[in-house]
This record gives sequence, C-alpha cells and structure tokens, in this order.
Amino acid sequence: MISDTYDVIVVGAGHAGCEAAAAAANLGSKTLLVTMNMQTIGQMSCNPAMGGIAKGQIVREIDAMGGYSGIIADKSAIQFKMLNLSKGPAMWSPRTQNDRMLFAEEWRLALENTPNLDFFQDMVKQLIVENNKVTGVITSLGIEIKSKSVVLTNGTFLNGLIHVGDKQLGGGRMGEPRAYGITEQLVSLGFEAGRMKTGTPPRVDGRSLDYSKMEEQKGDEKPQKFSYTDTPKLTKQLSCHIVYTNETVHDILREGFDRSPMFNGTIQSLGPRYCPSIEDKINRFAERTRHQLFVEPEGWRTVEIYVNGFSSSLPEDVQIKAMKHIPGFENVKVFRPGYAIEYDYFPPTQLKHTLETKLIDNLYFAGQINGTTGYEEAAGQGLIAGINAHNKVHDKEDFILNRDEAYIGVLIDDLITKGTEEPYRMFTSRAEYRLLLRQDNADIRLTEKAYHLGLAKEDRLRKVETKVTKSQELEIFLRETSLKPGIINPILESIDSNPVDQAYRAAQFLTRPNITLDKLDAIDTISEFTSQYEDEIREQAEINIKYKGYIEKEKENVAKLNRLENIKIPEDFDYKSLSSLSSEAKQKMSNVRPKTIAQAGRISGVSPADINVLLVYLGR
Amino acid sequence: MISDTYDVIVVGAGHAGCEAAAAAANLGSKTLLVTMNMQTIGQMSCNPAMGGIAKGQIVREIDAMGGYSGIIADKSAIQFKMLNLSKGPAMWSPRTQNDRMLFAEEWRLALENTPNLDFFQDMVKQLIVENNKVTGVITSLGIEIKSKSVVLTNGTFLNGLIHVGDKQLGGGRMGEPRAYGITEQLVSLGFEAGRMKTGTPPRVDGRSLDYSKMEEQKGDEKPQKFSYTDTPKLTKQLSCHIVYTNETVHDILREGFDRSPMFNGTIQSLGPRYCPSIEDKINRFAERTRHQLFVEPEGWRTVEIYVNGFSSSLPEDVQIKAMKHIPGFENVKVFRPGYAIEYDYFPPTQLKHTLETKLIDNLYFAGQINGTTGYEEAAGQGLIAGINAHNKVHDKEDFILNRDEAYIGVLIDDLITKGTEEPYRMFTSRAEYRLLLRQDNADIRLTEKAYHLGLAKEDRLRKVETKVTKSQELEIFLRETSLKPGIINPILESIDSNPVDQAYRAAQFLTRPNITLDKLDAIDTISEFTSQYEDEIREQAEINIKYKGYIEKEKENVAKLNRLENIKIPEDFDYKSLSSLSSEAKQKMSNVRPKTIAQAGRISGVSPADINVLLVYLGR
Repeated sequence: MISDTYDVIVVGAGHAGCEAAAAAANLGSKTLLVTMNMQTIGQMSCNPAMGGIAKGQIVREIDAMGGYSGIIADKSAIQFKMLNLSKGPAMWSPRTQNDRMLFAEEWRLALENTPNLDFFQDMVKQLIVENNKVTGVITSLGIEIKSKSVVLTNGTFLNGLIHVGDKQLGGGRMGEPRAYGITEQLVSLGFEAGRMKTGTPPRVDGRSLDYSKMEEQKGDEKPQKFSYTDTPKLTKQLSCHIVYTNETVHDILREGFDRSPMFNGTIQSLGPRYCPSIEDKINRFAERTRHQLFVEPEGWRTVEIYVNGFSSSLPEDVQIKAMKHIPGFENVKVFRPGYAIEYDYFPPTQLKHTLETKLIDNLYFAGQINGTTGYEEAAGQGLIAGINAHNKVHDKEDFILNRDEAYIGVLIDDLITKGTEEPYRMFTSRAEYRLLLRQDNADIRLTEKAYHLGLAKEDRLRKVETKVTKSQELEIFLRETSLKPGIINPILESIDSNPVDQAYRAAQFLTRPNITLDKLDAIDTISEFTSQYEDEIREQAEINIKYKGYIEKEKENVAKLNRLENIKIPEDFDYKSLSSLSSEAKQKMSNVRPKTIAQAGRISGVSPADINVLLVYLGR
Repeated sequence: MISDTYDVIVVGAGHAGCEAAAAAANLGSKTLLVTMNMQTIGQMSCNPAMGGIAKGQIVREIDAMGGYSGIIADKSAIQFKMLNLSKGPAMWSPRTQNDRMLFAEEWRLALENTPNLDFFQDMVKQLIVENNKVTGVITSLGIEIKSKSVVLTNGTFLNGLIHVGDKQLGGGRMGEPRAYGITEQLVSLGFEAGRMKTGTPPRVDGRSLDYSKMEEQKGDEKPQKFSYTDTPKLTKQLSCHIVYTNETVHDILREGFDRSPMFNGTIQSLGPRYCPSIEDKINRFAERTRHQLFVEPEGWRTVEIYVNGFSSSLPEDVQIKAMKHIPGFENVKVFRPGYAIEYDYFPPTQLKHTLETKLIDNLYFAGQINGTTGYEEAAGQGLIAGINAHNKVHDKEDFILNRDEAYIGVLIDDLITKGTEEPYRMFTSRAEYRLLLRQDNADIRLTEKAYHLGLAKEDRLRKVETKVTKSQELEIFLRETSLKPGIINPILESIDSNPVDQAYRAAQFLTRPNITLDKLDAIDTISEFTSQYEDEIREQAEINIKYKGYIEKEKENVAKLNRLENIKIPEDFDYKSLSSLSSEAKQKMSNVRPKTIAQAGRISGVSPADINVLLVYLGR
C-alpha cells in the first residue's frame, strides 16, 4: 500500500535506527524509516551529551565510516572536552554537551536530506516472515509494508515499563507510549528474550539553582570536534557544574529504599553496572560519603538542567527531598523526576557479526534491543546493521570490523560471542588493542573501508592519505634531526628532565614522558619545520614516535591473533561430536557458533585446552 | 511534595494551557504547568498556521492583552498573508504559516522565561476537591500537588481514540498516549460530559511532489505581523501551493466509505462542520467536482508538507491511492496518514463567563475541553481562564470581555450561553459588532484593560495612546482639508469615479469605494502632511473616515444592548417560579443561569416574550 518493496526497513528512529537508515540509504538501498512519532526522531532519551571515554572513540569511528552521529553532535554541541588528556593517547576521549532539541532537529533534517530514505509514522507490531526470512512489517494501523530486510532498533520501547517508586506506567519513554507485539512474535519464532533495566535522573529548573555553590566546569579552551568533515568548531560554550552529594542526601535517599523498585524486588532485571542509579551507588559503596554529580545544561536557550549522576527510581518525593540537601539545590524545582524503565531485549548471541539474526534471514538487530546501553554503542551497531542489510539484499559481502580495527568491532564481537547479562557499555579496557584504536586515528583506520563501501567520497580518502603522508614526513624529520646538548639541555632542565651530554635525535627526546613537540618548538630549527603542519598532523607524528614500541607490540599481537582469526570453523560444525571438549565448551560453542578459532577462544567458559582440541581436529 | 501550594495549576501545555500559564504567572500567581511531555509543549497538533478569518483577530486580541500567541507566531512565521483585503476592514484577517518545530520551541522558551512559572512533567489523572472547591491535582505517579485553582486544558487527550479506517488506537495525538481519569471523576462530581471528534490530514514528503503542476501562493509582498510588540517582520518567506481534487480522487475516496468510521457508525460524535474531512466534503457536496487543497510547508528546513483540506479518517491505503491522482501528487510519499480522533469534552454551559465551572469553585476549563476547535479559540480561552484563576485566588474582580469588546468575548459568551453540539469555530459572522472588533484596533480596544490587569506595561499603553492621538490628528486634517475640482478630478477620472464641480473635504472623497489615502497622496498638500504618519496610523484614520457611519451605528446598537446587559439577574433566581415563562425558557435559563437580561436573550429557545416576562418581574 505504502510503496513498492523496500530494500531496508528500519524500525525506530533513535541513535541506532537513524544511523542504520542513513547508512543503508546512502549506500543506495531504498530505505524506509518507521517511527512511532516523527516529532521525536533522534531524541536523546537520557543525557544531553555524546562521546566520553571509549564512547567518543566510537563516535569518531562512526564519522570516519560516513555515519552522521559526529556531524550531528558537532552541530548541536554547546561544550566540547577532550577527556583523559593527562593519560596516554589511547585514553583520550572526545565528549560534547549537546542541545537536546537541536540534536534531534539536526538528525531529522540530515535524514530528510538523505536520498533514498522515506519516512513513515506508525508503530511496527509484527514482522512478515516467510520461510525463515523477513519480508516486511505490519504496523499498528494494519499496514503491510514489504521489504527485503528489516533492522529492528526498538530501544526501550518493547513492552517498556516505567518505575518511579512503587508506581508503574507503561511507556517507551516517560510521556510516550510503549511498543508491543514484536517480542511475542520473535519468541514464538524461537528467539530467547529477556528484560533489562535502565534509568535516568531528574531534570530540574536551572533558575532554581545556586551556581555559586558549585564548581564550574568549562569546555576546553581550544575546543576540537568529532567529525573529520568540515563541521565548525565551537566559538562559544556553556559551562557545566560539579557538585557532590553528602551523607544527609544519602540518609534521605535510604529512607525511600523500602519503596524502591530496585530494592523491594519489583525490578528483577539488571541495569547498567557502570551507570548506576544514585541509590545503587549508595548501596554498593556504603563507605563513600559523597558522590560526584554533573549539573549539565540541556541546551543553548532552555533553563532545563540534567542532573548527571543522580539517576533514580526512588519515589519522586524522596528524590526531591534528597536533592534539596545538595549544595546549590536548596530551592530546586523539578521538571521531571528520574525513573527506571524495564524493556525487552534479545540476548545478542543470537546474532551474527553482521548483526543479522541467526534464526531469521535478513533480520537485523541494533542498539538496546541487543542489550547495550549508550547512544554511541547504539549508533555504532545501527551503522553496521544498515551497511550489512544493504549488502545482503544487494548480494554483497558481509561487512565486519575486527577487534583490532575498531571499538565497534570489539563491541559487536563481545556481544555476539559473550552475550551480556546486563546493559553492555563500552570501555577502553574492553579493547585489547586500544593503543591502535585511538580517537585520533579513526579516519586512518576506517576511511578507506568507508570509501570502498561507498559511504565516503574520494575527497575524504585523499584527505586521510594526506594526513598519513604529512605525519610520516614530520616523523622522519624528527627521527633524523639531531639536537646537541647545548640546545636541548635548557629545555630538559626547565622541566626537571635529565640533561644529556651528547647529541640525540629529536624523536628520542619525545619518548621521554614530559617532552612534547610543543616544547621542542622552542628550538628554532625544529619549529621552522614543524610549524608548517596542522595540529592533527603534529599530534599523529608525536603519538607515533612517543608510543612506537607499544604500538608495534600491539601490532605483533594482532598478527599472532589473526593467525587464529584466519582458522575458520565450518558453520555447521558439530561440537557435540568432539568428546574431548568440555561439556560447557560444547554447549557454549554450539550456541554461539564462532566463525573462527579466535572467536571461539573469546567465549567465556571455553578454555585454552578446548581450543587446542579444536586446533587438532581442524588439522593445525 | 513538589512544592508549597500553587496559586494556579494549569493542566496541559497546548495553546490554551500555555496562554493560561503565561497569564497567571505574569500577573504574579505562583503557577505550575503540568504536561505529559515537556518535549511537546506548544505543539501545533494540526495545521502549521496561526490566524485566518476571525481567528487572526483573536490572535491580535490575545497579543493586545499581553498574551504570547502573536509573538510566538511572528517569531516562527515562514509566511504572512492578510486575508480578505478586498473586503471591508472588519473582514481583514492576518494569517501566518509557521515552522512547526520552531513554534513549539519558542513557546517553551517564552514560558521558561516567564517568572513565577514552574513546570512538571506528568499526567494529571485526578483533581483534589474539597467542599466543591478544587484544591490541587493528583498525577499518574500519585503525586499530590496543592493549589488554590486549577485550569484544565486537556485538548484531545481525555480518553482520546484515534481512528484510521477501521483501526482504532488509544492516544491523545498519533504517537502520544491518551489521558484518563479526569472525565470519570468530573462525571461523578455531577458534570455532563460528551464526545467530540476532530481530524487531521496526511503529512507528505515534499520531495515527492511536482510543484510545477500546482499554483504557487506567495506570502504578502509587504508582510505584516500579529504582535503589537517589536517582533520582527519577515524578510523572506516560503510559498504555499494550491491544487484541486478531481472526480477520480473522489471516486477512489468513495471506495473506502464502507470502511470509514465516519460513515459506518463507528464514530458517533460530531466533528467541526467548517473544517470537514475530505470524505465529508465529497459526501455533503456531491455535486462538486473538485475541492481546493493547500499544500503547506511545515517549516523553514523540513521537507514535510501539510495537505490542508485533505483531512481524513479513511483507511490509509485509500488516502494514499486517492492522493496519487491529485496533480503533482502522482508519486506522493506519505509520512503520516490523516486520522480522526474522538475525545471527551464538557458542554460549556456548565461554565461561568470567567470559564470557572459552576459546579466546582476555582476550577477552570479552556480550549477543546469546552467543545471548541482551533488554536486561536483555545488560546483566547486559556488567556481568560488564566487571568480569572489569578484574580479569583487574589480576591480580585472577574475579568470578562463583552461581545462588543472582543471576539474572545463573543466566543466565551456563545459557549457558555448557547453551548455547542459540535466543535465551535469562530467566524466574523458570529460577532454582531464585527466592524468594531477589527484586527487593526485590537490594541485600542484592549491594551488599557491589559494595563489595568497588569499584563501590559505602561509603554504599551502609551504606544496605543499615541496611535489614537496621531490617527485623530490625521483624521482631523483630512476632514478639514478641502480639495478643489482642479486638483481632485484628475485622480477621480483616473479610476472612473465621478468628478466633482466644487471643492469637498478630503474625508468626503475617502468615503467613495475606490478612493484610498494612497490615491490622495498624489496631491502634494495631502502627502506633505500624511507622509509623517506610519502605515498603521494612516490605516486607522482611513478606516475611521471611510466607515464612520457604520461604526457609529454599531456603537449605538451596543449602547442599546448594554442597557439590557446592565440589568443583572440574581444568581440564585428561581426561573421555575415564574409561571409565565415558557417551559423551555425555564429549563434553559435554569441551566445556563444568565447573569444579565441580554445574556438571557442570547440563549437559544428563549423568546422575546420570555425576556419581557423577566423584565417585568425585575421591575423594568
């Protein structure tokens, strides 16, 4: 009725759905984005921010891959910070505060300007499945829309149940209806479904706060940005503020614990461990007398404030009473209380690396439906699902990012190999090759792939090539330029670094912890040459010199592992027939169906002994 | 829990709720606006436009009274047109196309910048009533919020039921949950409730339309604006387009009639007669071979298009199939189908002129809950309800606009006196003194009242006084300046107006139909003087001269009627004891409880004979 058959239908228009729709459409698929409400496309359901530790890397990867999240985040940013600058470059993580309304508006406008992409406002309540292959969707209005593939990105909407104290309300977000039908159908098709929980803090009236009692947290003096494209850098920024809870706040919150759905058994499902509610923090870290909160503006012009760190499903009276004892919050007025929400997810071991389901062909899952938490994690999955849905219906190869290529690769491999019992959040510690997967080199890692897929134009490829060439030039210069003691020692002494008694190459000094290229620029012969390079070139050369040893070591490890990655396991391999395998390994591997020996090794419960059995059997 | 007691709680943040909240807060009431979703404050649920015939006058009245609708409409306008310029000034009606998202954003920001106004996101499901007086609300989270008065502006949300063909979905708008609880409680308190129906057309993808087959409709060359404040005029505008349906379109639509909830009995409640669905138009005007449609952009940057005139609750496949036969719509892609919605309302004869309910003290109703349709009608009621809620809790006098003072006065008097069986829409024909109630003089009529209330500052009062003084100066000049035949006749002859053979005053020529002040400006002695006056002064003087006779006649009629308006009827008057009254009059008047003889005369079913009985009894 709506149209001829689509190539790709994307269900849901959050971070995952928007990226999936953009990717499929930009690759040339006739794509339809179905959302329950066109006014809420690209909503930031929780915090008004993008990026952060390990997440900022994902945003840069999405951008390098031709996704939109970085561009939208830049266009709607009200503050930029590069986190973790005091640590090594693997930890540097870009983060923006964003204007919530502008973010959503920019997403919608970006999608409207994407060719091949149609929109329809309705709730998808059923999939059309024929011979274990999805061929379309049926909406709440009973409309059948045919398609060659479907990407489900339902977020927290599937049977969403909101909790505030002992009150429960059906809804996908507060004030929005929930979705139904999909879970029940998928379970009847053989999928395993589960429940997860997440939460959000109260939003308050900025006019009611006394900022003089808080610590101002400004954006970076030289704000950078997410996108490798020509999005503008911020010329003005808004500040956040830091405050701390105290024992009085904690005592009041504890008074509500008996009415807390988290503690009285109403909520059984697990929430994000690393994004706990304030009551969870008090409970788990009973010895701590205070917890840090970030008081974050919701946009350029609104007075609404997001109280980051105060996520709660305690009764709203308890939330408010407790908040009033936070310094500066004495007269706080609450716009919306915090709440918890339970929703359906599908354990992601039911997926392939392409995010296609194992049970139903051409059906893809991305975002919270896979048990993840976070905008960036969702967006990264959406991008991969959108690419693969397009590729599949156009008989192209699967597109998979490996663990040594991108955080997105780590994310998806973790999900489908290990599954997750609680909302999965990305951390740098999850990436074994995090020194390779830096925010500064996402373009170097991924632009060529995006170009070959068709998501990046040639100019982007050329730009990256130039970046690589120039940083190599600079690196060579620094490796070849000798600095005599008379020249370098004043600099070394000025920062308490041991002086030298003979000449060394500039690069050698750079491997010392406190010596930066900026410092070496005090030497005219250095700065005369280096000043012709842009900041990002200088940064690249400096990182390559400073961390050469570590980077090469990681590359060696990758090479070793890739030998195991290259040993494929047949898809229909009968693990149960291998009596030498542990019974746990048999069960887990039969379930996950790893594609390679390396992936098998990452399954929890599979031991090195089990891997050896496999290697022997496979003739290695 | 939320706070101390509020003076005014406003439930709902549409046009009525926003104006009510702004008025009460600006007057100094501690005000709380409760909305189900803070992301949807100030939503234009239906067409992206403000004003129009008789409605534009209301917007200017709201603006003159210190309300925000005109300011918001100006700030978010993408096109301005003064409608009906070929008719007399009573018919001139300003209208804007608006950017839907920007309109909502500007409303929210305006409210956030209103002192005394708090916000809370939740659904109100119950009123707290003690001794027939409202003292607060209870939300879906079970939160009790105390207040001295409550304004209900629930729009289409109370038990909202959406219809698309034979599909029904609960909801307050498509994609948004409905509200419940209030109707049931009010009925248990003795209120009469009813159901009404309204509808909205499909939204389509502007990229799929061929505008070359449509007639462009540009905005005015010299765009004016709604607000008497210093909002900027438009410097660029977007065009609308006009197309027509045809018999093929009608035939296809008719194919769906058996699945139409309008025709198969599913929807029993009445919709807005003057805003009919396309199927209703085809059905009622079977002889017409085409109907006009306006293809309206939804904003500066979005590709979404509103198909004004194609409101429908036919099955979406029929809507789409039919639309494809509209010229330029051959390849139309639909974003959201049209739908009908049924919702609860309360017959407005249960209200006083202040919009306070007769049954429950300090409880006010405004907007669609009173059986009206239209943003402007809702906003006008919200303003009056907000003012009166404030006045009541501060022991101030009722604020009532009379029928000779404002369209808002006509609206409310019609509602509470006559009630309404179908959604009430304003027309110029409803105003017996429409020559007095013009869009150009809303400031002259109302600013002083707003000033005395405290809604307009002194500078606005001075500005109006200057406007009056200057237009009087100009009027006197034109009444005193003689124009000799040799000077005026060339002008008269150029427009085929009879030449004169002796001198007459300039004002006398202006009473001729084709003679305008612009034309007289061809005479140097005229233009030397008139050029010092701004357009709105010139317009005011010209109208006062041109329509002097009619205006004075209307003023006389007002004076006559006011004698009847001044004869008050005691509030507890026992109509049933007057045996000479007709039984219909007894019943209707007992129900409506008119405050004056004049109001009694406007009740349908009350005859002049009944009025005479009353006059005799009251000693006149």
